[in-house]
Amino acid sequence: MSKQGAKNWFIVDGYLPFAGKVEGEPFEGHEAVMILNCQDEAAEVFMDIYYEDRDPDEGIPIIVSAKRVKCLRMDRPQDIGGIRLDRQLQYSLRFRSNIEVVIQYGRMDIAQPNLAYIGMMGYAEA
Amino acid sequence: MSKQGAKNWFIVDGYLPFAGKVEGEPFEGHEAVMILNCQDEAAEVFMDIYYEDRDPDEGIPIIVSAKRVKCLRMDRPQDIGGIRLDRQLQYSLRFRSNIEVVIQYGRMDIAQPNLAYIGMMGYAEA
Amino acid sequence: MSKQGAKNWFIVDGYLPFAGKVEGEPFEGHEAVMILNCQDEAAEVFMDIYYEDRDPDEGIPIIVSAKRVKCLRMDRPQDIGGIRLDRQLQYSLRFRSNIEVVIQYGRMDIAQPNLAYIGMMGYAEA
Amino acid sequence: MSKQGAKNWFIVDGYLPFAGKVEGEPFEGHEAVMILNCQDEAAEVFMDIYYEDRDPDEGIPIIVSAKRVKCLRMDRPQDIGGIRLDRQLQYSLRFRSNIEVVIQYGRMDIAQPNLAYIGMMGYAEA
Repeated sequence: MSKQGAKNWFIVDGYLPFAGKVEGEPFEGHEAVMILNCQDEAAEVFMDIYYEDRDPDEGIPIIVSAKRVKCLRMDRPQDIGGIRLDRQLQYSLRFRSNIEVVIQYGRMDIAQPNLAYIGMMGYAEA
Repeated sequence: MSKQGAKNWFIVDGYLPFAGKVEGEPFEGHEAVMILNCQDEAAEVFMDIYYEDRDPDEGIPIIVSAKRVKCLRMDRPQDIGGIRLDRQLQYSLRFRSNIEVVIQYGRMDIAQPNLAYIGMMGYAEA
Repeated sequence: MSKQGAKNWFIVDGYLPFAGKVEGEPFEGHEAVMILNCQDEAAEVFMDIYYEDRDPDEGIPIIVSAKRVKCLRMDRPQDIGGIRLDRQLQYSLRFRSNIEVVIQYGRMDIAQPNLAYIGMMGYAEA
Repeated sequence: MSKQGAKNWFIVDGYLPFAGKVEGEPFEGHEAVMILNCQDEAAEVFMDIYYEDRDPDEGIPIIVSAKRVKCLRMDRPQDIGGIRLDRQLQYSLRFRSNIEVVIQYGRMDIAQPNLAYIGMMGYAEA
């Protein structure tokens, strides 16, 4: 069996954009983290949030079911252990999983107001 | 001979955008997966599609000819084994190849309606 | 001395966008490949261009001076061995260097006409 | 303890966009480099800036505190050792750290004037 990802992942440029919700439009600026678990058992992941000028929030538990992708909206406290991130605040993420997973980050920004994207894989360490 | 890529690839943030086709314009929101085979023989690739809340579709066969790049449009069932993906649906992809290839993902979104891009390499495991 | 990059690089999603040049505006849709050589000697690089339905153009020579970054505009035949790439044509790139370098790809698209970007590292094999 | 990143990082496509500041708008075209240090001690990082046609600026010192993320604005000389980068100038970056860190790059461009993004991990060598 080949590797199914990595156990340690890092996303450095977290930054919740303006919500910029427009009446009657389905778009809203947001960030999401997607975790893919290709294995036959659930993944137990711990997420740490790092900041520029204060101590990190560490050990936020996330469960990803077997053979599923899980999407965390970073502007929804219920998705990230009750943490309420401020908009326009720089932060970074570290993930530690008990089994191999693959983690990707996406930002959709409509502040200007046309939609712009950042999408990228996290940085992996086995 | 150096390595010509990897045999296992992962793309986590699949999401078919609105088609947003505008009369008389050549643009249409879409996703594509590109597979590069630099070797002297055809690559036999199997693609698996993972979802948030149901079992994956596994083992979709794809052939990439020797010394060619192949482009799969994710909104065309004939390109991906007859699977019809819903728009605005989160999914992930795993690829397993019998020889080393390189896989990249692209999304073109014109929902807002100005064009926005995500482009990125897949995540590779040897 | 640590590694200064890799000798083999791959970029899969090459695609020259519309030029979309607007009178009096400094912007023009284009692609560029940037090669960074941090070492004390020049790098001798060979570039191969792969296509969807014909044989590759192979062995295009590129020299990158010591301790410099070199920028190749993919729409300028004089930058890429006299090859004239068609716009709206899928292609991929492979680079082989005699010493370690780092290669990144960028696309600027103004077809719609607001500027959109793809920017990403190539895929590296030592 | 698993690895917490890498000691050597490369960003190839540095390019300060037009500032394009609009009266009364909070947006300004810029580039930023973010360095994440997940460890219990400060990271001592040296940054080198490479150019197309002149010798590099080398050895710019940067300190990243323990368990913090640090954001460098590339258009602010005070953030990068007093160097004043020209806008619309190609440059590349190399980082060498005494401990493992993770480095990501972002560009926000509003020249056209709608916002466009490039966001990506640097290229890492252990």
